[in-house]
Amino acid sequence: MTMRPINVGLLGIGTVGGGTWTVLNRNREEIQRRAGREIRIAMVADQDVAKAERITGGAATVVADAREVVGHPDIDIVVELIGGYGIAKELVLAAIASGKHVVTANKALLALHGNEIFAAARDRDVMVAFEAAVGGGIPIIKAVREGLTANRIEWIAGIINGTSNFILSEMRAKGLAFATVLKEAQARGYAEADPTFDIEGIDAAHKLTILSALAFGIPMQFEKAYTEGIAKLTQEDIRYAEQLGYRIKLLGITKRTPAGIELRVHPTLIPMRRLIANVEGVMNAILVKGDAVGATMYYGAGAGAEPTASAVVADLVDVTRLLTADPEHRVPHLAFQPDRLAATPVLPMGEVVTSCYLRMRVLDRPGVLADITRVLADRSISIEAMIQREPSEGEEQVDLIMLTHEAREKDVDAAIAAIEKLPVVTAKVTRIRMESLD
Amino acid sequence: MTMRPINVGLLGIGTVGGGTWTVLNRNREEIQRRAGREIRIAMVADQDVAKAERITGGAATVVADAREVVGHPDIDIVVELIGGYGIAKELVLAAIASGKHVVTANKALLALHGNEIFAAARDRDVMVAFEAAVGGGIPIIKAVREGLTANRIEWIAGIINGTSNFILSEMRAKGLAFATVLKEAQARGYAEADPTFDIEGIDAAHKLTILSALAFGIPMQFEKAYTEGIAKLTQEDIRYAEQLGYRIKLLGITKRTPAGIELRVHPTLIPMRRLIANVEGVMNAILVKGDAVGATMYYGAGAGAEPTASAVVADLVDVTRLLTADPEHRVPHLAFQPDRLAATPVLPMGEVVTSCYLRMRVLDRPGVLADITRVLADRSISIEAMIQREPSEGEEQVDLIMLTHEAREKDVDAAIAAIEKLPVVTAKVTRIRMESLD
Repeated sequence: MTMRPINVGLLGIGTVGGGTWTVLNRNREEIQRRAGREIRIAMVADQDVAKAERITGGAATVVADAREVVGHPDIDIVVELIGGYGIAKELVLAAIASGKHVVTANKALLALHGNEIFAAARDRDVMVAFEAAVGGGIPIIKAVREGLTANRIEWIAGIINGTSNFILSEMRAKGLAFATVLKEAQARGYAEADPTFDIEGIDAAHKLTILSALAFGIPMQFEKAYTEGIAKLTQEDIRYAEQLGYRIKLLGITKRTPAGIELRVHPTLIPMRRLIANVEGVMNAILVKGDAVGATMYYGAGAGAEPTASAVVADLVDVTRLLTADPEHRVPHLAFQPDRLAATPVLPMGEVVTSCYLRMRVLDRPGVLADITRVLADRSISIEAMIQREPSEGEEQVDLIMLTHEAREKDVDAAIAAIEKLPVVTAKVTRIRMESLD
Repeated sequence: MTMRPINVGLLGIGTVGGGTWTVLNRNREEIQRRAGREIRIAMVADQDVAKAERITGGAATVVADAREVVGHPDIDIVVELIGGYGIAKELVLAAIASGKHVVTANKALLALHGNEIFAAARDRDVMVAFEAAVGGGIPIIKAVREGLTANRIEWIAGIINGTSNFILSEMRAKGLAFATVLKEAQARGYAEADPTFDIEGIDAAHKLTILSALAFGIPMQFEKAYTEGIAKLTQEDIRYAEQLGYRIKLLGITKRTPAGIELRVHPTLIPMRRLIANVEGVMNAILVKGDAVGATMYYGAGAGAEPTASAVVADLVDVTRLLTADPEHRVPHLAFQPDRLAATPVLPMGEVVTSCYLRMRVLDRPGVLADITRVLADRSISIEAMIQREPSEGEEQVDLIMLTHEAREKDVDAAIAAIEKLPVVTAKVTRIRMESLD
């Protein structure tokens, strides 16, 4: 028995949409051998109709108005690759309302409106699949949601923004300043003209919000994520970290603690010997720690036309396979049954406990160390390691670097404020959190 | 609506069986929140009934005869953790014949009899799930079979035997001989009293056979796998490799080439800068190269009670979800629809093309290098790099190490045979294949 092809409506044929078109066509035979059914893009909506027609070469119906696709009776699955949370949200909800299944790579949309979208999908018994939203082509959603179901997940820590990882890798390898590397990244197409989402950790926080929900069975809570970017990182910090045996990576970290869930994106010192510390360039890697399996890691291209298309098409195959399944037997959108989500609170950043790297610029005078260690001791912050750079001849100021043991964020905040008030301290204190990832 | 629990029959409650019992009980709540249904071990078969009763504490029916479990009307899923291909095969086929779904960690059984077992399962419309058979707790079967369905897979290369990776890591880190480290591994429980399957690459070949079938849509063909172990590796080779920028790992490699599928397990030089070169101890890591996604890597514990149980339980959740699905919409056992498997031949090892590390022990005489390079040139084998260790005073022999460019295995075999016949060559030539993994 040959089943009729699955008809896909593609919203947006830009980088990822174009990649999806290419991969589905190039690997048509291979995909059909797996799925047992042809999956074809029957309709494409793009404002640039001429471009869409050039790419599809008459093999799909091209329209300018995406609303024609989401309501079209021939379409089984709508692939949303428009991005953002304006028109994309409207179209996804319209597709669901028309009883279509949805595949999307839109992490911003899901992190901000996922709860509403998944509720709408449940009401209509349709699937919303989103493997491409996190980690590009790495099947990380599937790993967390299906591969590790036996585990109580303890934490996830990931390099989930390729642009910022590229910038940090280049800064370290070439000794260049942040601003210089950012320009290079923009020239090479790794960073947008407005790079805010990538370099300020917002894109990573969108993705982390999704991973956190899947790991712990909680609703999406992007508004509670702590986000700090890489724009202030300097060569000094990268070099000092290296001397101490660490690399600095922009990590998204979500952790289960007795007090609540940690949800935070920030530059992080990690031990150089960890595999993830050696993930360079635009590559992504996500460490997942489960109580049964221990630490597992997933590595690959986190962005790009074909890697992201790889995830979109994998979702199309999954949705195709599950079209006829009882809705209650499908993998739940957020890994846990919707009526079994937990109300575990997200911890305010002030309550988070980490060890820290502190870099202080101080006058080269006797008693400085005593003053600073006193401030730390007053807040029960103990010191694990220290470097003092010897002053060059004639120099009056030196760098003092301390690695602390674990301490509560708000205590470290208070200590930093007090240290900055000391007369011997001549500049703002740099604080970078650390994670051992063991 | 609360659905009745899924009843599991566990065959064998040794290391992995005990881990499965522990994980299912400890994470009962978490697993049920995901699966939407309780999964409980209702029956346990083990020859050591007293031990099984001690572990289960009256919470499951314990029997000595596994046949009572596989035919029992209350059992939905049979978990086979006996191992080997004698009684295990009989029991798996009996379970299938009784219409039970099967979860197994038995890579040897599947590599040798998987084709027969999957055919029987299809006839009875039951699932045979085997995530635990490769890479312990790493969800690598799911990644290859479901996560990368968009891709034409080009190759897979993996560290898929923890025992041999532990031995190689210790040999390198501590400068110890193979036999010494093997004893340590046996003392620490990382190697069996009879370590043949691990150190000779047979266990890795079982796992590779499964991965190869999933990647390329071909039947299991263990009998065609080339297998070479680590017992002959020496400190010299590890050190010379290091000097040249390489690590030696026991890799399972399966690759699609125009002439056929490569299927081989052997010690391999890989560039030190690759992440997988830095996977140490008993950990496993598998690199999968797809045409759309590029290289992806999956890392984690490849063995052990709870990591392996993590995979067994994930399979139980998957099978539970798909119990009511149309059989033709389930993920096919070997990733591709059974009527769409390919007949691509497995290449004989003589036809495989790789670059090589060659270590030769030669007399310190003029003309030696000319003799050897002549032999290689006669077979069109070109040299990429060379080290000659200067002789110590009074020493008559030196080590000559060459890295070749890519050459056909049978040409290298012929060259080695010719080199060994040269009067200036005083010992067997050591050949270790190389892979760039890019």
